[in-house]
Amino acid sequence: MRAYQSLVDQFTRLNRLAHASTFLGWDQEVMMPPGGAESRAQAMAELHQLQHEMLTAPQLGDWFAEAQQQTLSADEQASLREMHRQWLQASCLPSDLVQAQSLASSRCSHAWREQRGKNDWQGFLSNFKELVNLSRQEAKARMDAADGAFDTPYDALLDLYSSGDTSTSIGKVFDGLKAELPELINTVIERQRRRPHVDLSGHYPVASQEQLSREVMKLLGFDFNNGRLDISSHPFSTGVRGDHRITTRYNEDGFIDALMGTVHETGHASYEAGLPEAWNGLPVGEARSMSIHESQSLLFEKQLLLSQPFVRYLTPMIQRHFPALKEVDNDEFWHAMTHVQRGFIRVDADEVTYPMHIVLRYEIESKLINGEMEAEDIPDAWAEKMHDYLGLDTRGNYKDGCLQDIHWPSGAFGYFPSYTLGALNAAQLFAAMHRDMEDLDAHLGRGDVTPLRQWLGEKIWSKGSFLSSEELMTQATGETTNPEYFIRHIRSRYLEG
Amino acid sequence: MRAYQSLVDQFTRLNRLAHASTFLGWDQEVMMPPGGAESRAQAMAELHQLQHEMLTAPQLGDWFAEAQQQTLSADEQASLREMHRQWLQASCLPSDLVQAQSLASSRCSHAWREQRGKNDWQGFLSNFKELVNLSRQEAKARMDAADGAFDTPYDALLDLYSSGDTSTSIGKVFDGLKAELPELINTVIERQRRRPHVDLSGHYPVASQEQLSREVMKLLGFDFNNGRLDISSHPFSTGVRGDHRITTRYNEDGFIDALMGTVHETGHASYEAGLPEAWNGLPVGEARSMSIHESQSLLFEKQLLLSQPFVRYLTPMIQRHFPALKEVDNDEFWHAMTHVQRGFIRVDADEVTYPMHIVLRYEIESKLINGEMEAEDIPDAWAEKMHDYLGLDTRGNYKDGCLQDIHWPSGAFGYFPSYTLGALNAAQLFAAMHRDMEDLDAHLGRGDVTPLRQWLGEKIWSKGSFLSSEELMTQATGETTNPEYFIRHIRSRYLEG
Repeated sequence: MRAYQSLVDQFTRLNRLAHASTFLGWDQEVMMPPGGAESRAQAMAELHQLQHEMLTAPQLGDWFAEAQQQTLSADEQASLREMHRQWLQASCLPSDLVQAQSLASSRCSHAWREQRGKNDWQGFLSNFKELVNLSRQEAKARMDAADGAFDTPYDALLDLYSSGDTSTSIGKVFDGLKAELPELINTVIERQRRRPHVDLSGHYPVASQEQLSREVMKLLGFDFNNGRLDISSHPFSTGVRGDHRITTRYNEDGFIDALMGTVHETGHASYEAGLPEAWNGLPVGEARSMSIHESQSLLFEKQLLLSQPFVRYLTPMIQRHFPALKEVDNDEFWHAMTHVQRGFIRVDADEVTYPMHIVLRYEIESKLINGEMEAEDIPDAWAEKMHDYLGLDTRGNYKDGCLQDIHWPSGAFGYFPSYTLGALNAAQLFAAMHRDMEDLDAHLGRGDVTPLRQWLGEKIWSKGSFLSSEELMTQATGETTNPEYFIRHIRSRYLEG
Repeated sequence: MRAYQSLVDQFTRLNRLAHASTFLGWDQEVMMPPGGAESRAQAMAELHQLQHEMLTAPQLGDWFAEAQQQTLSADEQASLREMHRQWLQASCLPSDLVQAQSLASSRCSHAWREQRGKNDWQGFLSNFKELVNLSRQEAKARMDAADGAFDTPYDALLDLYSSGDTSTSIGKVFDGLKAELPELINTVIERQRRRPHVDLSGHYPVASQEQLSREVMKLLGFDFNNGRLDISSHPFSTGVRGDHRITTRYNEDGFIDALMGTVHETGHASYEAGLPEAWNGLPVGEARSMSIHESQSLLFEKQLLLSQPFVRYLTPMIQRHFPALKEVDNDEFWHAMTHVQRGFIRVDADEVTYPMHIVLRYEIESKLINGEMEAEDIPDAWAEKMHDYLGLDTRGNYKDGCLQDIHWPSGAFGYFPSYTLGALNAAQLFAAMHRDMEDLDAHLGRGDVTPLRQWLGEKIWSKGSFLSSEELMTQATGETTNPEYFIRHIRSRYLEG
């Protein structure tokens, strides 16, 4: 057991340093005054360097070789596999490449903040080409290190966020969406035009929104002895076992966005809180991937919160916090919360149009990384796909087109698919739990999420990283990610209501 | 420059890890939900271990030897001296002693929390004797390592908190207090009996107290772009350059305690914010000692806030936040804020009686560490001194006697004198700045603390650890710590008003 135990000890120490980075990161977004930025950046960089040194220490290679010869239980083998995965991801890149990427990413994303506002595609391109070039090198190096595990360089980047999903599986799934969703969007919007417009404009004080958020979080099973809700400019979820911190932001012109954001992050936090306690602090005890994580947050936000039985349950609660809404009925709330609209901006998109924003980005970035497209060609490809998928004209409008997201300017290629894989998995999991529990809707209609949490806890949360994404989905639902459940969900919610 | 620069690099890295410990510690007291305690304790222990490993790394001894041969500027020599001081303090103890102390201190302080409530001196003694024994070993080891720098073992512990102050200098200073203060206390209390009682009892909402605190902090020069005010169960001050965090606590039955606490911590934070920027992150750029730190907080709290011109200035501000007090005049506020009373409990003591609590502790702990007294003898010594210095009978009342403070149960011997050295230094500094600036009271009466801050910034804050405590006091005031200024301050405030 020597080598395996040495690895466990090393990863446990690493996890304790990661604890420090986690809460310093939270503090930076939520608490830190502006004057703290400089020393915080230095401390974070020091911690990251220490963690990188620990994760790539020369003795680890020997320990892995030795541990692979040891007699280990099945759980320990999985634990070893996940430690090895993190080690390989950290150690397979030449350090001059990592440094060059870090510089190029800082330069490109920093300049992008201004260039986006100025619609300056040419200026952006001059930095971005170098970043693409370095990301291609990264993808190639990761592919080579993985010894045939990846079919394309892009797959090696995908694996960082959606471990287990490949461009083959994603391509098939996204083809399914492309075949049905654009037409479905037309039908949904056409149908919505015929229903009366609901106007919820008014003044919603932050204090009341926060009280509503906390009440809904408790209802969804969030334990405030083991976590906090705070405010930050971009909502996020972070923390460790026993200390789950989510943030939201409030706009006093409406309450729906903050509520949906809070519920979304509560889904993320619930997954984290449900991870296997016995493996806390080790890679195999961590959440599987971004695409599974996003399935939990979207299941809470889209499947659960936006379901008609749940909105019916919430209506008196909303009215209690906002007495001016006492004449609004639950159908009207539900209509306001499920309004569908085509738009340029991904982060503002509703659940029906959102996947097409992702398919577009996936098709472009996979070609870009695999060398089948050049950065110069992005605007034309963007305009063409935007027209085909959402019927919108973005020619010349880079600001609201290919310059809108921070992912590419910071070099995070391979991340986008996890959003939509998450949405599809959420629909598929929700369908499966309905098959397993006939009375689920009755529970949800009473505001009782216990069976939903138990089902997810057993099928997803408690599995940590013991299973691949595909195994997780198959064991929970009987099949790998299948876009049909999402399509059915959209049809049922928006066309059959 | 190789060795000196290597030391600078090592201490800079250390400082970045200390940044992490600082803000995780703040978070723990101010933000962390109960569920986070376990993983936070592990992360903090890991960080401390890493810092200890960095500070005692084998190459440091060689670097110090080599750097002492280098040609360095006077500032660099001071910087080297302070790095060496921290290194020696960390590396001069055998690691089995450190471990035994850590265990004994946890055991003793943990049990003390219950034993204090039960007045259980005998139970406490059974753990405490071992802790005293280990602290004596520590003191001896530190004395031996310092190569003749300390006259007694206790001096080696004193040096951890009040660098530059010795039992010879403190003994002389405290003898001065003993000769005058007990009689002075009698006179002050006698005189106070003759003035009318001021009753400020009422309801003081937390929100209004907080607004008042923030307004007073701003008035005193606290910059909220570079810091925060929060709530914790015990007020404290922490942070780094550019991010100074202070805490207070509110009791809705009164506003004076929270206000005095906030102003006290603002004094600490002002010192930290005024440290020499060019030496940020290195030991010589840090605050000199606890006795100088406490002089800054007490100068803000006692000399400044409780001065009659300043209370006069604050009166309308207080009345604006608490309209029920609009009939109270500034003399009545001042009387309520400067009420003197003998009591058993150090932390509740006013500035007049407080020093006698410290003299008593100093006399006991110095004998204890130097082996001139045994732990068994503490209660008798306590009762005798309490009777002599404050005229109070504490026989058999351990709870409100020698069991009241956390310092001894946690093994922090040598800390107590810094509180009263701070009070004496505060009075002496305030007297010196009045000599230097004739119109100071006029400024304070207008709520203008700029000249006070400039004087302290120049004489104390900007000096970091370049000077010893004695040099700091001598350069600022013309002499080393002299209790006469404190005695004069008490006479002037309480007998001549």
